[in-house]
Amino acid sequence: MHILITGAAGMIGRKLTERLIVDRALGAQPIEKLTLIDIVAPARPVGFSDHVKIRAADLADPGVAEKAISERPDVIFHLAGVVSGEAETEFEKGYRVNLDGGRALLEAIRLAGDGYLPKVVFSSSMAVFGAPFPEAIPDDFNLTPLTSYGTQKAIIELLLADYTRRGFLEGVGIRLPSIVVRPGKPNKAASGFFSGIIREPLNGEEAILPVSDSVLHWHASPRSAVGFLIHGAGLTRKQLGDRVNLMMPGVCCTVGEQIEALRRVAGDKVVARIRRAPDPLVQRIVAGWPSRFDPKRALALGFTAEATFDDIIRAHIEDELGGKIAD
Amino acid sequence: MHILITGAAGMIGRKLTERLIVDRALGAQPIEKLTLIDIVAPARPVGFSDHVKIRAADLADPGVAEKAISERPDVIFHLAGVVSGEAETEFEKGYRVNLDGGRALLEAIRLAGDGYLPKVVFSSSMAVFGAPFPEAIPDDFNLTPLTSYGTQKAIIELLLADYTRRGFLEGVGIRLPSIVVRPGKPNKAASGFFSGIIREPLNGEEAILPVSDSVLHWHASPRSAVGFLIHGAGLTRKQLGDRVNLMMPGVCCTVGEQIEALRRVAGDKVVARIRRAPDPLVQRIVAGWPSRFDPKRALALGFTAEATFDDIIRAHIEDELGGKIAD
Repeated sequence: MHILITGAAGMIGRKLTERLIVDRALGAQPIEKLTLIDIVAPARPVGFSDHVKIRAADLADPGVAEKAISERPDVIFHLAGVVSGEAETEFEKGYRVNLDGGRALLEAIRLAGDGYLPKVVFSSSMAVFGAPFPEAIPDDFNLTPLTSYGTQKAIIELLLADYTRRGFLEGVGIRLPSIVVRPGKPNKAASGFFSGIIREPLNGEEAILPVSDSVLHWHASPRSAVGFLIHGAGLTRKQLGDRVNLMMPGVCCTVGEQIEALRRVAGDKVVARIRRAPDPLVQRIVAGWPSRFDPKRALALGFTAEATFDDIIRAHIEDELGGKIAD
Repeated sequence: MHILITGAAGMIGRKLTERLIVDRALGAQPIEKLTLIDIVAPARPVGFSDHVKIRAADLADPGVAEKAISERPDVIFHLAGVVSGEAETEFEKGYRVNLDGGRALLEAIRLAGDGYLPKVVFSSSMAVFGAPFPEAIPDDFNLTPLTSYGTQKAIIELLLADYTRRGFLEGVGIRLPSIVVRPGKPNKAASGFFSGIIREPLNGEEAILPVSDSVLHWHASPRSAVGFLIHGAGLTRKQLGDRVNLMMPGVCCTVGEQIEALRRVAGDKVVARIRRAPDPLVQRIVAGWPSRFDPKRALALGFTAEATFDDIIRAHIEDELGGKIAD
């Protein structure tokens, strides 16, 4: 089996690559070949002796999408994209990468013209939804993005569904929850604190909490995100039906509950490293985000996330800290 | 006030033009100038002595959208598009005209760069929704098109909302019901019989009914469709909020109820011209269409449709038959 990952240098892309190399298979099928594409060349994976192709390229550039699928990968994980904040500040770049790049990939597949029918797993986002919300957002809720990023994700979802319906490819859109705990350095995303208040204290560093403890949000770990994508790749057209874009399960909890989970897992000393510094701008941005879903379809189709925020913290400690917490 | 109509040669475009020329104003503002664009040159309207510009052009062609807005129309009615059946049989043409053409118009406005902020009224469709449906489809129902046409309409809706949110234009998307009674010759659209079973018998001709009397659907007259577009043009950004795409009110009734309405308005002799000839293909297509909406927002914003199917038939007799029914 040949697998193509776009956006392979990103956080989810790297973790998906690692997982596929550990598994050496997707579903029941052994992986013989991996193609990894990103704007910057993804790192060559260690411990995979079979064929790996690494490419630095922009899918929105002419000919790139055609070349990306020229060896007819069986499964394509389309993760490439400009993140939410950048798509908002750089309007044209966001539309070019997230909309035109994604559409170019779908078009290249459609135009292959040799019976090529790959599985296309698209990493979408809960950002396709925007306030106001019911208490729990149902699977059939309106697409009401309040960011250009969410708009671009929603458009690729619609194209994915139409291209699937027309028989050009077999698409599945995975609407990711807020992924925590993100490894690495703090970033300037408005959502960064959700990871920061766990990651930094566990590293012995101070973290700033810019919102109130009552803020409710929908989370899953990077490990679960990778699990969603892999599980999605295994679903059949028949299982998915026409509505191929699915909101993923997650843990719904308040910031206060996250902090109490951190206390249970890592103790008072770690929690004491969180410093409250309310930021009205961040508060306002976060207020527009979805907080709770009722992802019946994804659960019925066998997608699983963590059961508690404690599990999300433990996944981070296992996957990123070698099981150890800084004193 | 300068008004631009794209798709001005189509049925709704012609009726909108006629209405604007009768009113000589949009809301409280007199109309000084009309620009009418379509793939084929729209007919020059009679009885409008002020400035009218007629143009045959394709918005998806380079430079056409820029030229269309070069005189900075205050209000743009964007009706241009390939119809449902054609978008399904001609995939590339549908995406080119309905998606690329619409996006080119929005982009031309964004890039005007001189503070230009037109009102853009987009004729969308209930085809942005696809089965399965709840008994009455709420305003916040998922976008689940089951046609390429519906997909293209949903994408322009999303762009319209994002461009409005970003302050590039003031958009409103008008999701039209099934418009009956369409004037003119029978066409091959799967929905054609909804108009045919009223129009042909009123003209003294036989009409074929390919579905059962129990088929339920959502209708408004061409006159109401024009009214929706004009009313939409008068709504403010504040009234609309972020969800600028609105399902329109209509009359929900079965084919059997339509026929009984025709009997009340025109008598048994006219109804006797309907011949039942079930067509399983048409039955299957129609089964995927929405039948009943709960358009709370549009009603609250003052949109109005006919109250009964009798009114829809009467509107046709008044507007198309000079008030007379063939014997």
